[in-house]
This record gives sequence, structure tokens and C-alpha cells, in this order.
Amino acid sequence: MTRSRYAPVGVVALCVVLGCWASPSHAAADRDKLLSEPGVYGTFAAFGLTEEWGRQDAPTKIAHLTALKGVVEQHREKIAIDLYLLRGLSDYADILFRIHAAELRDSQKFLTDLHASPIGRYLKKAGILNGMSKKANYVPGFPDQMRADLKAPSEPGASPYAIVIPIRKSAEWWALDQEKRAAMMKEHTEAALPYHKTVKRKLYHSSGLDDLDFITYFETSKLEDFHGLILSLEKVKEFQYTRRFGHPTLLGTMKSLDEIIETLAQ
Amino acid sequence: MTRSRYAPVGVVALCVVLGCWASPSHAAADRDKLLSEPGVYGTFAAFGLTEEWGRQDAPTKIAHLTALKGVVEQHREKIAIDLYLLRGLSDYADILFRIHAAELRDSQKFLTDLHASPIGRYLKKAGILNGMSKKANYVPGFPDQMRADLKAPSEPGASPYAIVIPIRKSAEWWALDQEKRAAMMKEHTEAALPYHKTVKRKLYHSSGLDDLDFITYFETSKLEDFHGLILSLEKVKEFQYTRRFGHPTLLGTMKSLDEIIETLAQ
Amino acid sequence: MTRSRYAPVGVVALCVVLGCWASPSHAAADRDKLLSEPGVYGTFAAFGLTEEWGRQDAPTKIAHLTALKGVVEQHREKIAIDLYLLRGLSDYADILFRIHAAELRDSQKFLTDLHASPIGRYLKKAGILNGMSKKANYVPGFPDQMRADLKAPSEPGASPYAIVIPIRKSAEWWALDQEKRAAMMKEHTEAALPYHKTVKRKLYHSSGLDDLDFITYFETSKLEDFHGLILSLEKVKEFQYTRRFGHPTLLGTMKSLDEIIETLAQ
Amino acid sequence: MTRSRYAPVGVVALCVVLGCWASPSHAAADRDKLLSEPGVYGTFAAFGLTEEWGRQDAPTKIAHLTALKGVVEQHREKIAIDLYLLRGLSDYADILFRIHAAELRDSQKFLTDLHASPIGRYLKKAGILNGMSKKANYVPGFPDQMRADLKAPSEPGASPYAIVIPIRKSAEWWALDQEKRAAMMKEHTEAALPYHKTVKRKLYHSSGLDDLDFITYFETSKLEDFHGLILSLEKVKEFQYTRRFGHPTLLGTMKSLDEIIETLAQ
Amino acid sequence: MTRSRYAPVGVVALCVVLGCWASPSHAAADRDKLLSEPGVYGTFAAFGLTEEWGRQDAPTKIAHLTALKGVVEQHREKIAIDLYLLRGLSDYADILFRIHAAELRDSQKFLTDLHASPIGRYLKKAGILNGMSKKANYVPGFPDQMRADLKAPSEPGASPYAIVIPIRKSAEWWALDQEKRAAMMKEHTEAALPYHKTVKRKLYHSSGLDDLDFITYFETSKLEDFHGLILSLEKVKEFQYTRRFGHPTLLGTMKSLDEIIETLAQ
Repeated sequence: MTRSRYAPVGVVALCVVLGCWASPSHAAADRDKLLSEPGVYGTFAAFGLTEEWGRQDAPTKIAHLTALKGVVEQHREKIAIDLYLLRGLSDYADILFRIHAAELRDSQKFLTDLHASPIGRYLKKAGILNGMSKKANYVPGFPDQMRADLKAPSEPGASPYAIVIPIRKSAEWWALDQEKRAAMMKEHTEAALPYHKTVKRKLYHSSGLDDLDFITYFETSKLEDFHGLILSLEKVKEFQYTRRFGHPTLLGTMKSLDEIIETLAQ
Repeated sequence: MTRSRYAPVGVVALCVVLGCWASPSHAAADRDKLLSEPGVYGTFAAFGLTEEWGRQDAPTKIAHLTALKGVVEQHREKIAIDLYLLRGLSDYADILFRIHAAELRDSQKFLTDLHASPIGRYLKKAGILNGMSKKANYVPGFPDQMRADLKAPSEPGASPYAIVIPIRKSAEWWALDQEKRAAMMKEHTEAALPYHKTVKRKLYHSSGLDDLDFITYFETSKLEDFHGLILSLEKVKEFQYTRRFGHPTLLGTMKSLDEIIETLAQ
Repeated sequence: MTRSRYAPVGVVALCVVLGCWASPSHAAADRDKLLSEPGVYGTFAAFGLTEEWGRQDAPTKIAHLTALKGVVEQHREKIAIDLYLLRGLSDYADILFRIHAAELRDSQKFLTDLHASPIGRYLKKAGILNGMSKKANYVPGFPDQMRADLKAPSEPGASPYAIVIPIRKSAEWWALDQEKRAAMMKEHTEAALPYHKTVKRKLYHSSGLDDLDFITYFETSKLEDFHGLILSLEKVKEFQYTRRFGHPTLLGTMKSLDEIIETLAQ
Repeated sequence: MTRSRYAPVGVVALCVVLGCWASPSHAAADRDKLLSEPGVYGTFAAFGLTEEWGRQDAPTKIAHLTALKGVVEQHREKIAIDLYLLRGLSDYADILFRIHAAELRDSQKFLTDLHASPIGRYLKKAGILNGMSKKANYVPGFPDQMRADLKAPSEPGASPYAIVIPIRKSAEWWALDQEKRAAMMKEHTEAALPYHKTVKRKLYHSSGLDDLDFITYFETSKLEDFHGLILSLEKVKEFQYTRRFGHPTLLGTMKSLDEIIETLAQ
Repeated sequence: MTRSRYAPVGVVALCVVLGCWASPSHAAADRDKLLSEPGVYGTFAAFGLTEEWGRQDAPTKIAHLTALKGVVEQHREKIAIDLYLLRGLSDYADILFRIHAAELRDSQKFLTDLHASPIGRYLKKAGILNGMSKKANYVPGFPDQMRADLKAPSEPGASPYAIVIPIRKSAEWWALDQEKRAAMMKEHTEAALPYHKTVKRKLYHSSGLDDLDFITYFETSKLEDFHGLILSLEKVKEFQYTRRFGHPTLLGTMKSLDEIIETLAQ
């Protein structure tokens, strides 16, 4: 029952045409470094598909998706690109790209190349969020046990769900001195720790790069735990200094490039 | 006078073509369990129809609706799907799907299959709200009589109207300790009890799954009672901790799949 | 000068084609009862016309308008339907239907039939507001003289202008006890009384039926008096408990079905 | 350099075709009275042009603009119509009509005739604001010298720039007694007086006629002075009782009907 | 890897066709004066490209871009025009023009000529912000050392990134006396000084010219420093008097006219 009865016939042969495996001919960007080090830029670019896309026949769609695949693979030499399917879970957009790059202009180059490729005219941009990774601000001052707990690895295995929540703090937050903010972030972290094993988190700093202060990114296979985590974070004092939380909240599922292509081909 | 004089002729024969009865060839999802147990995900997906749909002729519409029927019935093996007609009562959308599933990715699969089916390109997504059912938070602490009253069955019979009201609480609400929130929820429940018999309610928890904290869902045959219920709830103290109530308020009528199809075919 | 030089020729013959008089073959709904009694539902449905409508030739437009006329007259057997031209006075929409019905599903049936009729695909819904009439809440406690003044008839004669203002009260308003609200509504009514003769008012209660608490409806031939009324109401204490006033404010002129049809035919 | 090299050839001959002078065959409305007396209604109607307009060839555009010219001239017998080019200075719309009429339904008639004329289907309404002129509310209580200063004439000569700023006061403003409001309006007027010579102002009262309390209208040839005026007005106490100021702020240049037509013909 | 594999063949020959060098036949406006002196108007005009543009073939695009180039070069005789690529970094628009002119009507003339040129119908205006340069308001009262530091030159070299942040202050800010505002601006400037070398700033005053008080413009090659600057500015007292900061925040890369044309041609 996992495959729709109504998928056009062309899709069945899609993997044969596009080659559903990672091409070994491109040297990949140092993905691990980009995803773990400070000073890396993260861009979240969400797109819908135009009504016109739905009117294209299967061979046209497949030709355009072949080109899409080419653009993504080509840029993967330099930047890290993750894909998510939002369709059916978030009304904001159909697909989401998460891009990590040493320079924002490399992400821009990828997105303009994407736009210039044959599928570009069918992509409706829904939103672009920019942030950067930085060294932890408050963690160095936390107690030893807490710092150790934060280093404990998450449960291994696939995390099908990903959630992006943009955050803007109030002017009052920034007006507090570092000590007061650190105390509240300690309470925040204590509330989050019980969910550390089943919900992965990554923080991006955004002030000035868009209308946000932070982009928070989550991965989990247990949405109920993620809901519990957010509920806990709403109850700590620091939450009262949050002016915007979500708007949009992007909830989707992580997909490989080939899975996204298979969905778009339908 | 209940049937429009202007319905295209093709509609009259629609039931014959599509088969206006539940197909016995599919094992249904355990609907009762999905609608009553905690830990089940509820998705509200509202759609409008594109201008282009209005330009299709009757045979094309019927062919597409046959496919729609197929997608819904196929997924009903695993998830519970309810349908509502919003057109004419809510400017937000034309139709609404309420989906209950053990995993949100099953709801996503249904909605992406719906999108990939021939009618998909005529559906304009108006909004998707996600929540989950949980065990009652405050009820266990209520007095015995109140808990008994809450268990009393609603009046039997059809409830033609359904209303969905999204809710977001203020940061101040979550900052209150559990005892204070419980006392206010007791007052809230006392105000709601007189409407218990004629207005059915179901609560979904949303924090983190979209830009809400709760999705409240109501069914009634007596809209005046429903209005009275909301008015009573606006007067209790807990309402002052509500930052968003509605926006949108979705008011519609419950319909079978065949009734929705008949309306869309016009 | 009242007739445009640029009206297409077809319009001149429109009354002949459509029959510009009320058809005696339909028994009318008990309009007086629907407009005066409590427990009646009022729906305000505003529509724009699509760009495509402007591209239709005169015979097509007339054929579609004949069908529109049929839908309205057919439903007038059961519900009361008033029409207003917003175009040129309000940027929100082109036309407005005010519908009174014993049950909201009767209004929904009319609007879905309207959508299914040939003109339906050219109508862009701009907004739907639902409310219900109820017995006066505070008036019974007012002094005798005030109650008598409120019963004095408005000036007879046509009231070409109609205004619809949606209202949402603050949580603080509903948290006040009935006595305090009654005292403020007495002040509100005193401020409104001088305009009683030239500005007719009708109140609809909306809590739960859409994102409002009230829909206020006005008719007048003296817009300056109406402006004076609103200015007076902005100065009383109760106004400080109003969270939303307008958004949209709908200002239009009352029209017969035939007058609306003549405008749309152009 | 004031004429673009890229204007289509047809435009050069436009004045010959349309007749770039005021037609003496129509008696003009008493424009001076409409613009100076109290009790006159002012409507600001802003329009964009559809994408489809850009696709029309020069002869079609010229034919449609001839009709536009006819509608405006015909209604100028009864109402005063001013035109402004917003394109290039305000993202809100391309053109703006300011209409003065003894009755709002005369303005509505003009705008519905405009919509019914051939150019109507290419006009996208961006916004309509309604207000009325009234006798000065606070000025009679001002000191003699101040009243004399307010009567001093503005500098003669053309004022190419016009600015429209919608205003909504807070509930707190209207709750103040007349004396307190008068004192603050005196401070407001003192702050404005230095700009009296180079910035002309006109005030429209809007409460109830749209979602505003006032429409403020300015004309100047010295935008720097206008900026200085607004900055001064932001610093007086009365400004703290302003809930909405602008949104939109409409900045444009005053144009004759023929100049607007020349721009639209390109 | 900097050139996309999917660029249409026609682009390769673009420089030959359009002439990728500054034409010496036009006397340039005194750009240095316009960018440095007070009393100069600055307009930020952001545009997207319509879906229709994506459907044009390469020769049509190149012909239209030749005309675009002509319009820009012609107006550069009188006004200063800078271009930025927003696509891929900001969801607000694809390209941004920054225009400096002695009179706003000169900027309007450029933008209406642009609209009248063949590419005009493919440009969707996303937003127009107007401001003017003025003499520094608070700097003259700053200590000598601070004033000297502000005069130190920025690091030489290209600044690929540009950011535009619109600002509106609260009514409370303007109600403060000049001395209090000056003290807070001194604190603001101290917080900004460490970033003076790597982040260039320019301030435009907007009150009355649009819905803002200020437009702040930044250039940098080190986005991390720019982020640090904004973070520092969020922590000073003056920031608490900011009602709007961004919305939109425009982040893009500075491009020559030819580079923009090359991107649009794809």
C-alpha cells in the first residue's frame, strides 16, 4: 500500500533513467566538517511547485528532474545539501533544501543555478532563511555533568522527521546581561536534556542575515518526544523573551535526492 | 428545492459511475481506536479548487473524482479519513480532510498520493494543521461528579456541523505552575459542561508540530449551543491566556466521500 | 450622466431578456420574520469577479447572469437574500450577499448552488462572515425612557448606503461581570441614540462561528450621520475593550438583484 | 533625457489622437467648492495594471485610453478628479485617483463606469480609502496669532509631489476629553507651522467609512520640507496616540490626465 | 565549478552581443557626490521576474536585456544606479536597484522608463523604499576620539555582500528629548565601532517618504562581522525603541550591470 496506484507509468522506470545511486565521479564536499564546525553558513530554501508543473507530461518532467539531479550533484562537490519533503505535512511549501557552505555566495550560486536549470521556472520560492553555526555561547559555563550529558550521542538509526523553527527574541532578552541570560539558558538546557537521546538539535545564528535571531533545526524518529521537548521549552523562563516562534514551523520528512525526484515526477 | 437546477446532467449519473457505497474489498483501519486512543496523530488538511477545475467538462471531472475516490479508499485501510464541506460557510477553503494515523508519515503518504492523483493539480492547499491526541492532562484531578459528567454520552444522531478552532496560549500560560493551570481548567470545564450533551469536543496537542498549541474540534447539530459554549469559554479566566483563537475558524458540514464528490462534480 | 457611455450595447436589452421584475411563481421566504426574530443565522458573503469574467462577451455574460438570477430566486423561497454593490467604495470585493436563514446549512446550500451555476467559476470569494440574531442582552435593564427611544421607528424611505463592521472584543471585556458590561453598554446606547432616526442598525453574534464576536450592520441615507455615530461610539468606555473594529469595513450601496445584474453585465 | 528611448512609436502621436487639451464641451463641476467646503466626500482609489495590459499592442492601448479619457471627462461635470502617478515611487499601485463629490455614490458611479469601460479589465484595484471634509475641530480655540498663521497662503507654483498617509488613532485618544485633545492638537499645529508655506495639507475624516480615522493629504515641491514636517509631528505628544500611520504611505507625482495616459500608453 | 552546466548556450555569447564594458559615450552622473553628500534621495527598488520570463527563448531574453542595459546607461548620466542579486539569498525578490538622485522624480523617471522598456512587463515589483541622506544628527556631540574613529577608512577591496534593513522607531523614541537620544546613540556607536573597518554603513532618513523612519544599508566581505555588528546593536538600550527591524531584511551580492544581465539571461 506504500506505492500509489495512480503514479504515472514513467515513474517506475525513473531509477533506471536517472541512476538511483550516488555518482562516484564527484568528490563530495567535506560534509562532516560543514555540519559540525562553527563559522559555517546554513541556508534553508523552501519551494513549492507551480500549477504549470502539474500540466507537464512524464518525459518532460523526467528530463527536467535529470537536470535537477545534475545541479545538485555538481554543487555537492563544494557544499552540503540535504533534502526534505514538506508536502502533506506543512502548507508552507513542497520541498526544502538545507545547504551548508563555507560562504553564503556558494549557496547563492547553487540556488541561482537551480533556478537557471530547466526545472527552475516551475519552482515557486516559499522562503529562504540564512544562519551560521557558532561556538556554543553558554555551554562552557554549565556544570560538568551537564556538559557531559550534552556530549552523549543520540540514538543511532534513521530520523525520518525534521522540523525547522525560526526564532526571534525580544529586545528585552538582548538587554539582559550575559549572566542572566546564561542562567536562563541553563534552565532551558535542563528542560531539554531528557529528550537529548531521541531528538537531535542544531542551532543557527541569524541576526542580520534575515528577520530572525535563530533557526532551530530538529531531527527525530519519535515525534511525540519532539512535542514533549517543545512543551518543556515553552515552560521555562527564557521562553517569555521569545517574540516569534515558528511562523512558519516547517515539518517534513528527510529524503534522498532520488526519493524527492520520485515524488516530484508523479 | 434541495437539489440545484443548475447541476450538470452528468452528476445525476454520478453514483452509478463511481459506486456510491463503501467498497467491501478493503479492510478498514481500526477507526474507533484511532479516534479514541491517545498517541494518535490528527492532521487537518484544507483545500480550495483552482479556477482551472471550473473549466473542465463533466466527463473529465468524473474521471478525476473516480481517482480521488480510489486514493481515499486505498488509504482507509490504514488511516481514518473524514471529510467536510467548507464551501459556503468558510472563506478559507472548499473542502477539509481530517486524518487520524498512528504515524504522521502515513498521513503524508495519503496527501502526497492525493496530490499525485489526477485531481491533485486542481487542489490548492489552504492549510495543514497537525496535532496528536494525549491522555487528559487536568481531568484526573477534577472532582468525582465532574469526571462522571464528562463521561456522560452526547446525544445520539447526526451532527451536521463541524468546527475547527486553532489555539495558541501565551508564554504566561505556560509559565504558570501546574496547580494554577489545573484550577483554571476546572473553571473552563465547568463552563463547558452544560453544552456537553449537544456539542461533541476533541482536543489535539500541537506544540512544535505547527504554529499552534492546540487544535480544538467540535461537532454539533445545534449551532446555537455551540455559540453558547464558545461564549461561556470566553468568560473564564483561562481565556485571558489565549494569544490566538481561530485565524482561521473553520466551520463546515460533515459529508460522506460520495457527497463531497457530488459537490465537486458540479 | 447616470448611465455610462461605455456600457456594451447588450446591456440596454438586458431587462427584456432577464425580466426585470420579481417572478410571482415563487413563494417568498417569510422575510420579515427572518429579519426581525432571534435565532436566525445571518451570513455575509463577499465576492470579487475574476479577470476572466472581463474577457467574456455580452451574450455569455447575459446567459450566466440569467442562471445567477435563477439560483437567487429559487432559494428566496426559503431564505432572505439582500444584495449590495461594494465596487467603487470598498477595495475588499465587488458584490456582497446578506443571507438570513433558519439554518446555516440552507445558506451553505445557496452559496454552493451559486458556485455550481455557470457564473460560479468567475466568482472569487473575498470573505464569509457568519452570525446569528439573539434577544437583546442588555436592553431589558435599561431605563424606561431609553427603551422607548430605542423602539421609535427610523425615518422612512430608501437607505442607499449599507456598512458592515466586524467586531472582536478583548478577553478583558468578557472577563468583566455582567453588571459592568451592562453599565458600559448603557453609555454606548446613550451615545448612539441621537443617530437612531437616520441610521438603522442590526447586530449579529458571531463567537465561534467565525473569528469575530459581532457583526454590526448599518443602513443610512446620510453617511455624515453614520460617521457621527461611529465617532460617538469610539469615545465611550466600552470601545477600549474592542480588539478589532473593521478589517474589513464594508461600505456599499443597496441594490436590487436586477441592478446588480446590470452592473455585472457591463 | 526626460523622454525614454524605448517608448513605442505610437506614443509620439498620442496627443494628436486623444486631443491633449481640456474639452470645452463639458461644464466642469464646481471644483473649488468641492475642494474647500466641509461636508464633501473624498475617495482615494489606487490601481495597478494587470500583466495582460503589458501584452496589448499600441493601437489597442490607445483605443482603451481614449475611452478612459471619456469616462473621466464625463464625470468631471459633477465631481472633481485628480490624478497621480505612483509607479516608481510607491510599490502599492501604479496610479491614484483622488475624487471629491457631494455624495459618495457619485464617486462610486465614476469608479464603476471606469471598471465597465474597456480599460477596466486591466485595472487591478490596490485600495480605496473614503473620508469627508469637516469644519476644523480644534482651530477655533487656538490663539489669534496661530489662526492668522494658518490662514497665510502657501507658496504659489506647482507642487509636483503628493503624499497620502492614512491614520488610525488609539482608543485612548478618543477616550480623552475634548480639552486634552485640543491642547495636544495645539502642540501638533505649532510643530507643523514652520512648514506651512511649502507643504500644503488637507484632512479627511474617515471613522466608519473605512478602517481609518483620518486620511492626511500633502502636496509639496520640497520633499525635504515634507520629511521635516513629519519628523516634527512624530515628536509631539499626540503622536503617541496614533495606532496606525501609513500602511500604506502613498508617495507620487501629480499628473494631468494626458500625462497619465502618456505613461500608461508606454 | 563557478559556471553552471545548465546555462543556455546563448549566454556564452552574451557579452559579445551586449558589450560587456562601460560605454564611454555617456557622461556619468557625479556618482561620488550623490553617494556622499547630504540632501540626496536614495531609492531601493526590488523586483522579481514573472513566470512568463522563464518561458521566453534566449534571443527574446537577450533583446530585452539589451534594452534594459540601454535604460540603465541612459539614466546613469543623471543618477547613480547600483545593482544587487538577491535571488538565492532573500525570498523577497530577485534583483535590487539602489538609486541615488538629487530629486526623487528623477528616480521615478528611471523606474517608469524601465517599466516601459520591453523587460518591464516581466518585472514584478516587490517593494520600493525611499529615503534621503542628511548631515549626521548626533555625531557632532560625540567625543573627539570617537569622531576620529568614525572617520577612519574601511578596509579597501571588494565587498561582495550588501544588506538593507528598514527601521521604524517607536513613538516613545521620538518623544525623548534630544539629549537622551544622543546619549543612547553614543552607546549605539560605541557598540558599532569595532566593526567599522570591515562593515561599511550608510543611513537614509525615511519618515514620511514611506512607512519607515530609516533605511540602513551595509556592505561587507565578512558576513560573520556583519552578524556580530547586528548582535551588538541589539544589545544597546536604543534597540528597545525599535518597533520594526527588517521585514524585509534584504541580503544580496553586489553585481555589475553585466553580471545581473548574465544571470537574468539564464
